[in-house]
Amino acid sequence: MAYKPLDEKTVIDYIKSRPKVWGVLFDKDAELEVKEVGDGNLNLVFIVTNRKNPEQTVVLKQALPYLRVAGDSWPLTRERMRYETQALLKYNELAPGLVPKVYDHDEEMSLVIMENLKEHEIMRKGLVARKRYPYFVDHITTFLVNSLFYTSDLYLTGPEKKLLQAKFVNEQLRKLQEDFVYTNPYMDSPENNWNPLVDDEVQAVRSDGELKMAIAEMKDAYMNHSEALIHADLHTGSIMLNERDTRVIDPEFAFFGPMGYDVGAVLQNLVLNYLSHYGHTEDPEVREEYQEYVLSMVRDIWNEFARKFDETWKNNNRGELVPNKYWDFPGGEEAFAEFRKRYIHRILQDTAGHGGTKFLRRMMGIVSVWDITSIEDPEKRAVAERAAIHIGRRWVLERKSVDSIDDLVEIVREEYKKVAG
Amino acid sequence: MAYKPLDEKTVIDYIKSRPKVWGVLFDKDAELEVKEVGDGNLNLVFIVTNRKNPEQTVVLKQALPYLRVAGDSWPLTRERMRYETQALLKYNELAPGLVPKVYDHDEEMSLVIMENLKEHEIMRKGLVARKRYPYFVDHITTFLVNSLFYTSDLYLTGPEKKLLQAKFVNEQLRKLQEDFVYTNPYMDSPENNWNPLVDDEVQAVRSDGELKMAIAEMKDAYMNHSEALIHADLHTGSIMLNERDTRVIDPEFAFFGPMGYDVGAVLQNLVLNYLSHYGHTEDPEVREEYQEYVLSMVRDIWNEFARKFDETWKNNNRGELVPNKYWDFPGGEEAFAEFRKRYIHRILQDTAGHGGTKFLRRMMGIVSVWDITSIEDPEKRAVAERAAIHIGRRWVLERKSVDSIDDLVEIVREEYKKVAG
Repeated sequence: MAYKPLDEKTVIDYIKSRPKVWGVLFDKDAELEVKEVGDGNLNLVFIVTNRKNPEQTVVLKQALPYLRVAGDSWPLTRERMRYETQALLKYNELAPGLVPKVYDHDEEMSLVIMENLKEHEIMRKGLVARKRYPYFVDHITTFLVNSLFYTSDLYLTGPEKKLLQAKFVNEQLRKLQEDFVYTNPYMDSPENNWNPLVDDEVQAVRSDGELKMAIAEMKDAYMNHSEALIHADLHTGSIMLNERDTRVIDPEFAFFGPMGYDVGAVLQNLVLNYLSHYGHTEDPEVREEYQEYVLSMVRDIWNEFARKFDETWKNNNRGELVPNKYWDFPGGEEAFAEFRKRYIHRILQDTAGHGGTKFLRRMMGIVSVWDITSIEDPEKRAVAERAAIHIGRRWVLERKSVDSIDDLVEIVREEYKKVAG
Repeated sequence: MAYKPLDEKTVIDYIKSRPKVWGVLFDKDAELEVKEVGDGNLNLVFIVTNRKNPEQTVVLKQALPYLRVAGDSWPLTRERMRYETQALLKYNELAPGLVPKVYDHDEEMSLVIMENLKEHEIMRKGLVARKRYPYFVDHITTFLVNSLFYTSDLYLTGPEKKLLQAKFVNEQLRKLQEDFVYTNPYMDSPENNWNPLVDDEVQAVRSDGELKMAIAEMKDAYMNHSEALIHADLHTGSIMLNERDTRVIDPEFAFFGPMGYDVGAVLQNLVLNYLSHYGHTEDPEVREEYQEYVLSMVRDIWNEFARKFDETWKNNNRGELVPNKYWDFPGGEEAFAEFRKRYIHRILQDTAGHGGTKFLRRMMGIVSVWDITSIEDPEKRAVAERAAIHIGRRWVLERKSVDSIDDLVEIVREEYKKVAG
């Protein structure tokens, strides 16, 4: 079927034409109800439900042949839906239950039909509302370890890895991140915007030679360190969850890049939420308690990630990088353990570098995060933003001397205290 | 035309069927003379000459559908000829005159028709015979800078780089190097062989935990640091030259990897030649003089590479990594200069790490180099080999503290002196 954007009417005929869906997920006599809920600029998102049995429901997501951000039109082909679908399928294989199920997909139509997560909410919203998610640390670390380890040279053979990597060229969406995370925010560029109250901080970043060299180094690593299949946009807006269940969504940016980028995205978004409660939560006791909860997640996620990563590697060392036989010498077992430790420590330093850069881009680039933008008082917002800039700067510049996650958490506390008192 | 290995007879009809060759490079009444000069295991190599006018001559190289090394058969598809051809075409574009001209190629037949370098010899042979090549430093550094810089993110846009990289998946030949350079030599593997007189050194390397962690780190970088299109087998057997002219050949291993791997291959092969004169050149004065010449090339190649790389970057900064506008702030010009300096310094450290590993693999892996194997006296050979192992070990372990090429040259002198007296 040649590509054509669907609408609330044509989507019904389309659904009825799909043998994996019609008569399988929906009864043959279903009465389909359709709601378009996408933002209309990038993708169409239809929720399709059987009026007779609302348990029968799917999401159909279709790419539009362009991306409109901040008034500019970017020449993004519909290929991005192929990358999203490939990544979702891979994630369903490696981390089942932690991503939406994929029911059907259609490359020509640039669409995927998947599970409707109707009992989940976007994590960002829940965190601003001070919700707690007792299984989140366990779930997200399993997602991170499984998606990263099993697509790396630690598990795949050389040819397996290269052939999988060849399916994720994704040159257009990668270019977006290269521009919007690592380049444009730090120089004059029309789409940048920031709170005028932090203009001094923004200008200081833009003329800090040492910091800009470090950001350029992180950009080089982002572009060229092809460790594993990364989600590449794993902020708390790409996570849907509830108290029991966690799902990672929207992996259209996926490509083979540095593991620390995904880990850094999760941690850095949690820290931005921590900072945002300066504006969202008035009662100091309530605020501090929730902020401590958020920081404890930051710490626990790293530590649990490191533990699971090491254990998974130790027990599944079938990849190209170092076969078990390579360590077959007196002291070899200890050397392998030490090698794993150093490798994971290096991921922590990458987490600091990439995560640190992402703090800065959010404060002075094309788009901030809702946690921050939803603070109505610009003065309060500026406090959170000022701290974010200071924290980002230090995570980037001090990345090579980071010993443990506690170092990164300590930077958060110190810089928050300096500006929030 | 479906794939079929050619022979000395069928190659004539084949040549006559090619409109880019017959009537163009050869007169229509040419009398073709054919000699097969390949080793018969990996590729067929035909030299085709017009008996009536020997200036009319080409080389036709055709891949066989397997690779036979050391009695083992590796399942290498003929795809490698596509990679070699693509790389040769790219090199002709970026470094014309420093690779053989490509006249014609045929993907289905897995062959390329190219310039016959009849006035050139393999560099290894010339170096063992103590020849001097006054233009080599200039030529090889131009080749390195042009092939590496112009295929990196320093010159290409993000999408240009990714799309070019997607043409060099080359998973099979990469696996060979991953095995034979970074893995098998350091563990028990049937194809390894070494001089029994250096058995102590070989065993010491195989059970040196710190060294093996470092080699595994270099392997990780080799596999995952996709900086630029590298030749990936740039030893002095892949260079044909004479006093005036230099050509790089055989780029079938080409892929996007670390720049330091190619630079390290050149320098490390020169140092192996330096060491080999312990066995090849009896007269101590003649020996020392030539050895100093070889070491001066090592030093000059690095320094000239660094100078040309920096200059080329400064004047052609159109790539994705850091646009000129990024450095547009007070002190930005100096920051960009410092960033280039650090980047090039990091290539030197990679050169030490990858080059160092390659010393070791040559001494204890599947295949040494002719400079060394042609030393008849096993005792003398062992002296060169022992020094090579010590140098390789130190280049790898000390790579992160290398400040200049002089540090690497000094290690060569020290370790050679220790074992050769």
